[in-house]
Amino acid sequence: MKKFINKTDNFIIDSLKGFAKAHDDLVELNLDPIFVTRKKINSDKVLLVSGGGSGHEPLHTGYIGKGMLDVACPGHVFTSPTPDQMISAIEYCQPKNGVLFIVKNYSGDVMNFEMASEMISVDHQTVLTNDDAAVINSSYTSGRRGVAGTVIVEKVVGSLAELGGDLTACKKLGDKVNLYSSSIGAALSSCTIPAAGKPTFEIGDDEIEFGVGIHGEPGRKREKIKEASLIAEDMISVILKDFEEKSLNIKDSNGVLLLVNGFSGTPLSELYLIYNEVSEKFSAKGIHISRSMVGNYTTALDMAGASITVCLLDNEIKKHWDSAVMTPSLRWGNEDV
Amino acid sequence: MKKFINKTDNFIIDSLKGFAKAHDDLVELNLDPIFVTRKKINSDKVLLVSGGGSGHEPLHTGYIGKGMLDVACPGHVFTSPTPDQMISAIEYCQPKNGVLFIVKNYSGDVMNFEMASEMISVDHQTVLTNDDAAVINSSYTSGRRGVAGTVIVEKVVGSLAELGGDLTACKKLGDKVNLYSSSIGAALSSCTIPAAGKPTFEIGDDEIEFGVGIHGEPGRKREKIKEASLIAEDMISVILKDFEEKSLNIKDSNGVLLLVNGFSGTPLSELYLIYNEVSEKFSAKGIHISRSMVGNYTTALDMAGASITVCLLDNEIKKHWDSAVMTPSLRWGNEDV
Repeated sequence: MKKFINKTDNFIIDSLKGFAKAHDDLVELNLDPIFVTRKKINSDKVLLVSGGGSGHEPLHTGYIGKGMLDVACPGHVFTSPTPDQMISAIEYCQPKNGVLFIVKNYSGDVMNFEMASEMISVDHQTVLTNDDAAVINSSYTSGRRGVAGTVIVEKVVGSLAELGGDLTACKKLGDKVNLYSSSIGAALSSCTIPAAGKPTFEIGDDEIEFGVGIHGEPGRKREKIKEASLIAEDMISVILKDFEEKSLNIKDSNGVLLLVNGFSGTPLSELYLIYNEVSEKFSAKGIHISRSMVGNYTTALDMAGASITVCLLDNEIKKHWDSAVMTPSLRWGNEDV
Repeated sequence: MKKFINKTDNFIIDSLKGFAKAHDDLVELNLDPIFVTRKKINSDKVLLVSGGGSGHEPLHTGYIGKGMLDVACPGHVFTSPTPDQMISAIEYCQPKNGVLFIVKNYSGDVMNFEMASEMISVDHQTVLTNDDAAVINSSYTSGRRGVAGTVIVEKVVGSLAELGGDLTACKKLGDKVNLYSSSIGAALSSCTIPAAGKPTFEIGDDEIEFGVGIHGEPGRKREKIKEASLIAEDMISVILKDFEEKSLNIKDSNGVLLLVNGFSGTPLSELYLIYNEVSEKFSAKGIHISRSMVGNYTTALDMAGASITVCLLDNEIKKHWDSAVMTPSLRWGNEDV
């Protein structure tokens, strides 16, 4: 294992300390228990709380700030945060208008966020993300996995909460964005958990794992690597079928948001190449891409690979996608608004 | 070699097409010869033109837009762009107030930008970046190499040019930012050029290349991997010595900009860990970090590794660093300004 690391046990703390210092205008780190909040807490808005195992950075800490999350609770690498993290963060923030938990659908996360929600007295709801169309049930999941679509949920609901949307409206919008989102990924390499010290799975020099999870969970098939154009074709098939099964019209005139997400070991040049393949094929099928994101937004430690996420945009989602956001890892729009 | 790629020969074109489509609100791609410009060209400002071999994305194309570059000319992977690319781009943009070339100090780039500048009639100047303190003379360089400090030059000079600074002032500021910047990197892995199909250099499972170049050029020493804290210590020594040799006071009260740059194969969590190490050590030495950037800004294909760049901030540099910028890969400040 080759990593920039001191002691394996301190990896997350050392990294979070650096994160908090690098962005000390935007965020604040609490160490015992571990949680990260906005620098300026607004207790009048619905408090958006997310979290999950570390190793997916910038998810979730990098999305804390105006127009997005209020709190993130990072667990150890690929390990759920514990309920005391969520509970302490909520006590610290003193929300007056409820808490919305945004949780990726992994059994450990679901259980621990549920435990936390049973132990707080403030109004709360949970949006469970499960945008990964690859497989149903997996190493750490019952049902579908939550992956990069979670970023879109956090951005869109973050905007509504910032503009004063109440808990019910935020929950409803979050569920809609999740339903309207569909993702599929492929790995070219495994990833290495620091404490394990060796790759999570073995993969041949000429193989890819199609439908891989963001912890290296198995996907749909192990196959020989082929041209990016053909991999993109397979990805699109999965997405189209998923929208069909959900009875959603991907050809809606409002268009879609296309997120090409890197798992962190794949260069930006290759992600743009995938974007090109998907956008050419979408264009041929009459699918209109009206918003785009290309980069490492939901990662899997050092894994080489990428996913695509398609989110159907209606007027409400589009408006909240476009609104100003100011976080360490997503930043656009007028900062004074 | 495992990459998301179709034909090796088309890699750069396929990737640039995706880039241009994903950011069609900001940039425009010309294919024959290849250059990328802003969507809205302002021929009244000093035209900032950069370029170089591909494989360092988001450098330079990702920095095209308001407050930064006007034009980027990408060559093949790790290969200089040819003079016709720069000449055609300048003809296309019709600048009325001169051209500033921002060129990383590699022999091929220097030669081809010089040839281009001899063949254009418009006023022009060149800022040559050579911020890499690792080595003097290298595989593709006489003198020091230009690396991630180039991003800071492009941002700061981009701001001055946007605000109406003339060619002489832009050249002077660019040279100052370059002088005030110092970088050093370390590789944990090699990188693979698509056309070569195999890693550029061999490196043992427990080794790092300290002082590596962004094309995998040799650095100062090949050594056993050690704790990140110790690697950071070595990096800081190089930077401090460089500032000393330049007779610049790194402890100036205005503080420094610290950029922790990933070469693309290293996860964000590790980059933040390096940031933490450097910032703790700087703090102990009385060096004040007043601005920070952590991410993949100047990459080396799929190389695992990272560099640190320190730029001394005077009032002028700080003002232009903070000003609004709107490009695919750097974006902050008020977009309406």
